[in-house]
Formats: sequence, C-alpha cells, structure tokens
Amino acid sequence: MSEGMTGAQALLATLAGAGVEVVFANPGTSEMHFVAALEADPRVRGVLGLAEGAVTGAADGYARITGTPGVTLLHLGPGLGNGLANLHNARRAHSPVVNVVGDHATYHKQYDAPLESDIDAVAATLGPVVRSTTPADVGKDAAAAVAAAQNAPGGVATLILPADASWSDGGAPARPITPARPTPSSTVDDVASVCRSGEPAVILLGGDACREPALRAASRISEALGVRLFVETFPARLERGAGLPAVERLGYVPEQAEQQLSGARHIVVAGAKPPTTFFAYPGKRGDLVPSGAELHTLAAPGQDVTAALEELADLVAPGAEPALAPAHRPELPTGELLVATWPDVIGALLPENAIVVDETNTSGLLLAAATAGAPRHDVLSLTGGAIGQGIPVATGAAVAAPERPVINLQADGSAMYTITALWTQAREGLNVTTVILNNRAYAILRMELQRTGAGDVDPTKTGLFDLSTPDIDFTRIAEGMGVPASVATTAEELADSFRRALAEPGPNLVDARIPPLL
Amino acid sequence: MSEGMTGAQALLATLAGAGVEVVFANPGTSEMHFVAALEADPRVRGVLGLAEGAVTGAADGYARITGTPGVTLLHLGPGLGNGLANLHNARRAHSPVVNVVGDHATYHKQYDAPLESDIDAVAATLGPVVRSTTPADVGKDAAAAVAAAQNAPGGVATLILPADASWSDGGAPARPITPARPTPSSTVDDVASVCRSGEPAVILLGGDACREPALRAASRISEALGVRLFVETFPARLERGAGLPAVERLGYVPEQAEQQLSGARHIVVAGAKPPTTFFAYPGKRGDLVPSGAELHTLAAPGQDVTAALEELADLVAPGAEPALAPAHRPELPTGELLVATWPDVIGALLPENAIVVDETNTSGLLLAAATAGAPRHDVLSLTGGAIGQGIPVATGAAVAAPERPVINLQADGSAMYTITALWTQAREGLNVTTVILNNRAYAILRMELQRTGAGDVDPTKTGLFDLSTPDIDFTRIAEGMGVPASVATTAEELADSFRRALAEPGPNLVDARIPPLL
Repeated sequence: MSEGMTGAQALLATLAGAGVEVVFANPGTSEMHFVAALEADPRVRGVLGLAEGAVTGAADGYARITGTPGVTLLHLGPGLGNGLANLHNARRAHSPVVNVVGDHATYHKQYDAPLESDIDAVAATLGPVVRSTTPADVGKDAAAAVAAAQNAPGGVATLILPADASWSDGGAPARPITPARPTPSSTVDDVASVCRSGEPAVILLGGDACREPALRAASRISEALGVRLFVETFPARLERGAGLPAVERLGYVPEQAEQQLSGARHIVVAGAKPPTTFFAYPGKRGDLVPSGAELHTLAAPGQDVTAALEELADLVAPGAEPALAPAHRPELPTGELLVATWPDVIGALLPENAIVVDETNTSGLLLAAATAGAPRHDVLSLTGGAIGQGIPVATGAAVAAPERPVINLQADGSAMYTITALWTQAREGLNVTTVILNNRAYAILRMELQRTGAGDVDPTKTGLFDLSTPDIDFTRIAEGMGVPASVATTAEELADSFRRALAEPGPNLVDARIPPLL
Repeated sequence: MSEGMTGAQALLATLAGAGVEVVFANPGTSEMHFVAALEADPRVRGVLGLAEGAVTGAADGYARITGTPGVTLLHLGPGLGNGLANLHNARRAHSPVVNVVGDHATYHKQYDAPLESDIDAVAATLGPVVRSTTPADVGKDAAAAVAAAQNAPGGVATLILPADASWSDGGAPARPITPARPTPSSTVDDVASVCRSGEPAVILLGGDACREPALRAASRISEALGVRLFVETFPARLERGAGLPAVERLGYVPEQAEQQLSGARHIVVAGAKPPTTFFAYPGKRGDLVPSGAELHTLAAPGQDVTAALEELADLVAPGAEPALAPAHRPELPTGELLVATWPDVIGALLPENAIVVDETNTSGLLLAAATAGAPRHDVLSLTGGAIGQGIPVATGAAVAAPERPVINLQADGSAMYTITALWTQAREGLNVTTVILNNRAYAILRMELQRTGAGDVDPTKTGLFDLSTPDIDFTRIAEGMGVPASVATTAEELADSFRRALAEPGPNLVDARIPPLL
C-alpha cells in the first residue's frame, strides 16, 4: 500500500486513518496532487466551497457537531487569508480544525513567484503550524496536526504542504497520535466552600459545560444552594430546550451583563473565561466581575469541566435534581413581522432535534425566550465575533448530521460575507433552512455608534450602516445559487415559508423582512 | 481646528491633507469614531463594501488608476484577514494602499476578548505596520503609513488604530511626508552594450514600464536594434491599443513563455522581476531565463524604469520611432459563443478610453489579440494570482475614474469569491460592465491537473473543479444586488448586451455562457 506512495496519498491515508471522512476544499494548482489523491480515496469525501470563508466556516460547523476534526484544503497564503475570519471563530469555539494549506514546491520559493507569501506567519496567529519538507514527513506531520487540533480544549492547527512534498514518492501514512485529554480540576473543594458559604455566587458555564451532563450537574448545584447560573455569551454549542436545564446566556450589552451579575460576591468560571465586555466603551469597565467580588476558576478551558461540575454537585448537592425546562411553545403570532414577533414563529415550529445556527445579532434579542421550551436543540453561536459565520457553519453542521434539520437564523448584513456557501448547500442537498432577518441595515453598528458616544452623528442616517440602497433581494441571490427561496413580510407568511422549507428536502431560504431595532 | 480633536478626527484630517478623497470601508464597533469623523468631514467620502475582499480590491483598483493611496477601513484581525487575498494582489501590483485597521482599546487587550487576534503579525506579511498607542500619535502615524505605502515602488502599509487612541482627545493632524522617489538606474551603459552586441536580447517590461512613455522608449530600442520586448505576465496596469506600442505579455503557461524567450542570449528586466514560472511543475525548471542566457537588470522595482528606458533609447536608438499599433477592430463574430469568438465581440465594441479589468483566466487566451487595435485602454490584471480580484478592482477603478467606461472580463469561478462587490457598484452607480465568462468550471484547474501530472484522474470528471451542479445563475445574483443583467449564449447576444450595457448609466452584467477550454 505505501509502496510508491506520494506525500499526498500518505496524507489522505493518515487523515482517513484518524477517522476523517470529509475535507472542505477550495483547491488551486499547488494542491492538485492532494485533489487527485482525494478523488481516488473512497474513505474521504471532498466538499467544495466557492470561497474560503465558506470552507473554513463549514469545517468549524462540522467539528462542533461531530467533535472530530473539520479539515480544510486551502490554496496558499491568499486562500488561508480568505478563510481567516471563520478560522478565528473556530479558534474561539475550540473547534478541532485542521487546515491543509498548499504551498509552492520547496525549490520554487526562491523565485518569490506571484502567489508567494508568508503562510507560516498568518497560520501561527491561529495555532500550531507544521510545515512538511519531504514526502516522508507528510504522514507524521499530518498526524501531529490532527492531534494538535484535538488537544484539549481543541483548536486550529495548520499543515503547510509544499507541492513537491505532496507529489513526490516516499510518503508513508502515520498512525493517529492520541491528543492531550482535558486535565482534572484541582479546585473542586475550594469552589464547594464558596457554594456553601451562603454568599451570592454565580457560576459561568462555557465550553463543554454547555452540554447536557454538565448543565444537569450545574443545575443541581443551583437548585440546592441558590447559586445563579449563566452560559457564556457566545457558546460554541449549547444544548437546550424542553427537558434540559434552561440557563440564560450572559448578555452582549455590558449593562445587561452587569445587571445579570450584580450582587454576586463570587464568580466561578466553569469552562468559560472570566467575564469581560466584548468591546471597550469610553468610561466603562471592561471587566465584568463586579467590584468586590472574587473570581474562582473551577475549570479553565482545557480542564475537564464536566467531571468537575459533577464532582462538585455530588459534594454540595447530593440529593438535588436539576430544574428542567418544561415543554412549551409560544402561540403563533400574526401580523407584521417584528423583532418582537418573528422569534415566536421559530419557537412555535422548531422541529425535533434541530441544530440552530444563531447569527441574528440585534434581531435575535428575544429568540432565547421564544425557544426555551421548544424541543431539544443545539445552538451554535458566533464565538469569535467575526460576522459571516452563519451560512458556512450551518453548511458544515448539515454535512455532519444529514439526519437533523439545520436552522440558520441569519442577519442580513452578516449573511453577505459568505453568501456563496448557499451554493454548497444546494450542491450537497443539505437540509438547511436559512431565515434571513433582513432589516436592511447594520443595525448593531447603529446601536454601537450610540453606545460609543461617537459625536453628533445620527446613526440611522449614517450611510455606512445602510443596506437599503439598493435593497438586497436575498431570494434572487439564493435562487441564483440553486436554493429555493421566498419572502415573508408577515408572521403568517414566515410560518408558511418555514413549514414548507422544513417539509421539503434540501436547502431553502426565507427572506424575512423586519424593521431594524434602531 | 485641532483643539479638542480626537485621534480619529486627526486621522481624517491627516488623510485629507495628504489628498485622500475616498475610504473603502467595512467598519465595526471599534471603528465607530472613525466612522463619525468620516461622516463629518466633507473632504473624504466613505464607500461601503459588504465584505472585506470587496473593500481591499477596490482600494487596489482605485490606487492603480489614480496613482494615489487607496485607503481601507477594516474591523480588527478578522476584517484584515477577509481582505488579505486582495491585499496580496495589491502588494504584487505595487499599489499604494493604506489599511486603517481598528483594534480594541489599549487597556481592553488584556482581556483577550472574542475579537482579539494578532493583527500585527498578519499585517506584517503585507508590508510596513504602524500601531498608534495614543491620540497624539495618530496623525503622525497616519502620515508615516501614507508615505510608506507610496515609497517607490509602492506597496501596502497598515495603521492599527486602537479604539481609545481613536476616541480620545489630544489628536493633531500631521503634514504629508514626502515618500521615497524611484532611484536612478546605474546600468544603462551596460545594457546599452548588451543591446548593441547584436546578440539576441529580450527586454521584459514591468511596473511603470507598462505605461506609454516607457513603452515608447522600449519600442524605439526594439525598432532600432531588433531587441524583442515582452510585458510581464500580470501587469498592474498596461496601456495598450491603437496608437500605442503593442507589446505581447509573457505567457502564463511555462511552455509558451519558454517559446517566447527561446534563443535569447540576454534577458534584460526593466521594472519587472526576473522571469519565472507561476507554479512549479514536476520535472520542469522554474527559472525562465534560458540556459546559457545572461540576466541583466536595467531597473528593479523601485528604480526609475521610465527614465532608464528613455536614456537607453536616446543612447542606442537616437533616431528611431516607436512602432505603434494601427487602429483595427475584428469583425463582429456570429453564432455560438466560444473561447475563440467572444473576445472579438469585445475587440469590435470596446469603447474609447476604457479600463479593462482582466480576470478571464483560461477563457481569455485570445483576448489580447482581439483588442490590440481597439481604442486605447488600460488593462488591470491579476497581479498576485489570488483570484476574486476582478469585481472589486473594477469597482475601485470606476470610483477613481467615473468618466471612463470600466469593462470587467471575469471568469465565473473567480467571480464568486467577491461577488458582493456588485452591490457597491449598484450603490455608487458605477459605470462597470461585467462580462462573466461562464464556463461552469474551474477550467484552469482542469488544465493544471493535467499539467502537474497528478495521477490517472480525469480532470473533466473531477467534482472539485465542477461549477455546474448546480449551475450558477449570475443574472439572478446580480439582480439581487441591484445590478441589471442579461444572458448571452451567442456572439450576437453578447454584442447586443454589451452595447446596451455601455449605453446605459450605472453597472450592468452579462452572463456569457461559453464552453470550457477543457
């Protein structure tokens, strides 16, 4: 098998041996031998994206759902660059993502050919970088990159693959390397004392603590001792809905988060980072730990937060039961589609076992409340704040779980960064329903302009936040990429469109016209 | 004026003082005070792009046409990342481009907030980086960045602007700094000896040598001494057409370039880099200087190539006249639209004084011949090989020269990376006619798969090169962004659509369906 194997073939064999089944790809000339090896290997499937932001976001979505590496194939430095924003989100999500980035042949780099650039420097901003120099290295380098991406808590690793290391003979597949597992917490007893102290305490849940086992343990603690619970503002994957503990997310707007945490004497982070504001604002604190409160770390990212919470619950709440959200759906609203009404349509109709990709920004303020009692679902959120994540992440999630309905609730401005991922949804026949919350504005920037106190400018008149000249017709854009689409201007129309989209196989898009919050 | 001026206001005043009239922007929260200052300053106009690749490509196109800095406004590291591919092309074009990249407030960086990333490392791969730390620094840092971008031969410079340096008082505008001018050539006499030697010689023209004065001087030399001339494969801006010297571009396919340079004893580079292949191929040389030939540098990028060629011409060809292309247009073709026929439609109908943005890839093999005798025009080409340049560069060129018709000849696959730049064309009412050469494939990759000899895979059956499942309907996508569009399947239809597009104000798109070369 390895006789006469090229570096590219060794790479494919190594990836397949590590359980990789999908490569999200936007290849170029320097990756031709990888493409040929991919076409020839029935164990691994290539999924084409028309731009790298679609590819990297899909790898992130795939990794969030499967827990296994999302693999990309990118074309040199510019390909990596185009994919950087969604790799940033993947890094913040602790998604195991492995980039295979083609490079010029080793002996060609001396010429500073047009596509030459410093791939290593850009990739190093994301995480570990391995550069193969010979075909014999490729297999073991690939195994190292896959393990690096999976080392707890997970992250982005990059394998740079020079064309000659890819096309030359001498490759050998390498066995998977066992990644570093989460380390145990050493502070359970200390945190137990805090919880038992009777002083007001908050546990902030993040990472794996947003999944059912940890949520149940946290809820037991809360029920027994009155400790308040919050989930980090932008969880990578939050399990919620009827039958699961309902835990509110910490607000994006600093005043809201301050309100949520006010009065706490202790802030315990469990899989989350210490709470801070997303941005700085003139004259405001960035640290959200209330003045005078103590910060405790039950488990930092990379520590086994589920075990720590379960151990903690057994210590301080041995007999307690978690508080589970009752099944409850809102009434289907009627009339004009508003920020206050559209979420109820989703809450009323959300199918069983859905994956909800939430890039609603300002339009989604009431979404969590509307779906709290809906059937159990996963929410994938905008972990790194780099907008343009939703359509690609939904695409990758649907590749990962073809049997689950994927609902992408998507702000209009954010959608346009990576709109071409719709084409991949059509090509692959993915069960994604995209609802564009189309308010014809960067509404969040209108809000932020006010919040930052930037001068006497009227945010509703600021041209750079306006998306209505011209209006974007998302139905035409979607249809142009093979995705059936419709417009909804009332709650009834959204309900009809949403039901129909769920009933039909393959992707669908609903352009839901709502007024901006601001 | 500078009393109570913020850093952002000082930045705007410094840019305006340096002659900057346009900022291509995709802002976020950390750039709110820059946005407010921009709205308040009538000297500088903000042009919104819906994704950063559109913004950076537009800045490049603007810089290529005006010769003055194209300025971008980008949102932290992910914004810069999304714009990186077209900044790579701008770097290769030696376009003076200044990125203003917002960052978190200096005191907020300690929190490693979600959008935190290593902006400096990514920006440093492009060129000089200046990071302001106080409002007092911003003006002089901006002046330094503008000068750095303009230092001969021009390039990409980045100013990183922390939010607090932007919003705080204490800013002061700075005067423009005179950038480094091109240095004189010291090899004119040596190259004169080469030209006079009678041995076969080639002059390879690049950079400013692709503009009329240098082309005329080179043509005189060629006419007097039989020296062969070529233009670099991907010039940033090539002036050509009737009444100008007609100089062939060096081919992208190595065998073609080898053929063009074969027999030369001397290769003289004049504003270009030494000729090499774009990619490495197994068993092929990357260096295109023929074996046994000598390489001479008349002027490297950053040297005054126009003065050097004029001095050389005066030395070796004092009485010679340049050979100018006669006015000549092809007949309008009829029937099926083919790689061999569509360029004649453009050659027959190209308007006076057009800017032609050429990202035709395989479909454009015969374009140069078809337009050689058309009215004088500028060609902007894919300098850095990072596809997805055409629509944004055309957008920026049209902002730079609203009185000139801009023709974007655009491969379908490449178009999709930055398709949202069409919206900016509609918003700004730009006179851009986009002709999509829609062959429903990454045809160049089919060719490259064969050329790289990657296994027994049939390139026409390789799924990753196929853009026909589903077909992309560019007319719907364009209309969805406010750009009128039509389909052309015959030469007659392309001629009709092209004429109509030129006659109407504002942008237009023609989806020209052609079979792939492979």
